Amino acid sequence: MALVNEHFLKLPNNYLFSDIAKKVNAFRVSHPKKDIIRLGIGDVTQPLPQASIEAMHKAVDELANKNTFRGYGPEQGYDFLIDAILKNDYASRGVHLEPSEIFVSDGAKSDTGNIGDILRHDNSIGVTDPIYPVYIDSNVMCGRAGVLEDGKWSNVIYLPCLSENNFIPSIPNRRIDILYLCYPNNPTGTVISKAELKKWVNYALENDTLILYDAAYEAYIQDPEIPHSIYEIKGAKKVAIEFRSFSKTAGFTGVRCGYTIVPKELTAATLTGERIPLNRLWNRRQCTKFNGTSYITQRGAEAIYSPEGKEQTKATINYYMTNAKIMKEGLESTGLKVFGGENAPYLWVKTPRGISSWKFFEQMLYEAHVVGTPGVGFGPSGEGYIRLTAFGERNDCEEAMKRIRKWIL
Amino acid sequence: MALVNEHFLKLPNNYLFSDIAKKVNAFRVSHPKKDIIRLGIGDVTQPLPQASIEAMHKAVDELANKNTFRGYGPEQGYDFLIDAILKNDYASRGVHLEPSEIFVSDGAKSDTGNIGDILRHDNSIGVTDPIYPVYIDSNVMCGRAGVLEDGKWSNVIYLPCLSENNFIPSIPNRRIDILYLCYPNNPTGTVISKAELKKWVNYALENDTLILYDAAYEAYIQDPEIPHSIYEIKGAKKVAIEFRSFSKTAGFTGVRCGYTIVPKELTAATLTGERIPLNRLWNRRQCTKFNGTSYITQRGAEAIYSPEGKEQTKATINYYMTNAKIMKEGLESTGLKVFGGENAPYLWVKTPRGISSWKFFEQMLYEAHVVGTPGVGFGPSGEGYIRLTAFGERNDCEEAMKRIRKWIL
Repeated sequence: MALVNEHFLKLPNNYLFSDIAKKVNAFRVSHPKKDIIRLGIGDVTQPLPQASIEAMHKAVDELANKNTFRGYGPEQGYDFLIDAILKNDYASRGVHLEPSEIFVSDGAKSDTGNIGDILRHDNSIGVTDPIYPVYIDSNVMCGRAGVLEDGKWSNVIYLPCLSENNFIPSIPNRRIDILYLCYPNNPTGTVISKAELKKWVNYALENDTLILYDAAYEAYIQDPEIPHSIYEIKGAKKVAIEFRSFSKTAGFTGVRCGYTIVPKELTAATLTGERIPLNRLWNRRQCTKFNGTSYITQRGAEAIYSPEGKEQTKATINYYMTNAKIMKEGLESTGLKVFGGENAPYLWVKTPRGISSWKFFEQMLYEAHVVGTPGVGFGPSGEGYIRLTAFGERNDCEEAMKRIRKWIL
Repeated sequence: MALVNEHFLKLPNNYLFSDIAKKVNAFRVSHPKKDIIRLGIGDVTQPLPQASIEAMHKAVDELANKNTFRGYGPEQGYDFLIDAILKNDYASRGVHLEPSEIFVSDGAKSDTGNIGDILRHDNSIGVTDPIYPVYIDSNVMCGRAGVLEDGKWSNVIYLPCLSENNFIPSIPNRRIDILYLCYPNNPTGTVISKAELKKWVNYALENDTLILYDAAYEAYIQDPEIPHSIYEIKGAKKVAIEFRSFSKTAGFTGVRCGYTIVPKELTAATLTGERIPLNRLWNRRQCTKFNGTSYITQRGAEAIYSPEGKEQTKATINYYMTNAKIMKEGLESTGLKVFGGENAPYLWVKTPRGISSWKFFEQMLYEAHVVGTPGVGFGPSGEGYIRLTAFGERNDCEEAMKRIRKWIL
């Protein structure tokens, strides 16, 4: 008798974004003529960099010709892309990695979701709270998160990030086996300084903790003092896996490309205390359950490292960060307290007078016709906040701010 | 202390294809002037259909323009592709599926590897032997395969497919929870008749067995009596998940696209006997750990269902199947016994005089300078066979046959 993985059944049936969609639809049915502005989901709106477009056309043409055709590529990604990553994203910041420490994939969601394959099912998990839901849900699915009790998972340690602690999680006084950190942070849009990140690396070194560091939004960092990679911190190669994505860096949400760094020095233990290099295990996982990323996509990703590509991606990031500035100023002018948006494309807005996230979401939808994401959807510490993204069209961002001003003031 | 998933450590360190590569390299070093023909790895050589090329150029251009740009697509795939699949691959054969029963992915390797996520770790596994190694390795990684003893995994039931039983696996007299079937078969190139497949569906219905049916090579079927989909058998929707791939159908090995069918009627049990629809679990798995397949790729896949696309893919498949015919005749003319190659792009060659797979592999490399894949690499019942693929260039296939004739006769 085939048996299901019952851990899946522990997942609540409601999905944040489908709940939002239902509420938005209900509004549309009752207000068919109202024009809604969506600043909820973190999807980009601007076209791909021209350099990527040209590179992908060229790649498509190569596949049309027997002499330049490419079939299966390396599961770990093509050297041309790995070399560009090493040189531009790491060596330029003084971080030296070997090509075999980089694994190109179809995106950070796949990698952050699949990384648990190489880890024991009973490791304890730590997360900053609020958090990108994939980290927790993927652990629930394999039983690692435990059971849900009063909105929290029993084997997950939540590190609250609130305005009260300036969104800096406190080092816990207990050991965590696996810790997820995401900086610049989704959903709060806040960043971590080198000094604070150093504390976490030291904690991990002392406690034999594995840090899963999601740096999908690093391209949005404006402040030169903020680290882009955890490997800028000494010792981090011994304790951290880093995830990167081209989705927000270069508009690849629909093209699908990211990469994961698993340093050779990084090990985890067996029950008998033997140290096992995680690079070898992740390589085996990828070779067995993945067959590489589209050649066309990889050529498109390589092109963002060309001089033209860099200029074009920078221009798009500037566009979104100008949106963020306009939104931040607009929201603050209404008296709202706004976090993030300076080194990240997300604005984390405190609801006024302790209104709940969902209540504020509904009010903003019905009064201003603007859709955000209720902060509580990202975890218990998100209650009383709402997330807005800066990935919209400029006109929409400006119009949304006008509407919110008119509604609130 | 972060702990590794120790099941990974049970996997043998030697990989079939890297062992082959090492032996080929050793030959090259000692025979630098010899021209080697590679008929080992199942990768295609012919360019993509022109219809796909044109569709992908168009898709790339859409992503270059703000008004036609697409970001995140549905995790399950775009409707345009799902509709084309439903209509052309299923309705045309009298199989009626709903769009939500189809999950487009980046390839059958990912799906056959990841499907285990939704199933309990202690289900028993059945495989036809020899077999595509991903089925077993992905089960080893989560502990489901048990331990390796004398070349077999303790929780895996092997169903030998040999010339002696005409490569038709016998229905076992014990219950299997999860059964992998692959038809047309990789590596043997053999197919299954409707009557034989019906026996398996009935076995599954009687024993509450989940069949994981890999039909990645269905486009190569020439005989109109051979089923392309397991759902051509009555009752199969209650017991089977089907995997399909565009890799061999349309040369997508480097572009990455496949799909998986999880019928709504298909359920598996909890420990208490509750029936859970697997469609819901797979949907949740994909929404959590996957972010959809490249838009460009999906447009390329859609195009193979256009009249031009169908003609072009058919022409390429005919090219490979003509290779297969030439190879089969060439090999048989030397007195070798050859299976497969009539409804599949693989030839499964019995080594003469009981020579081992690796011995024959080495002899063929050193005497004829032709690379195949030792059958034993696909499982114990592959010993005494070698696999050749028909995916090469015509000239290479012809030349390889000349060399093999010269060597053997």
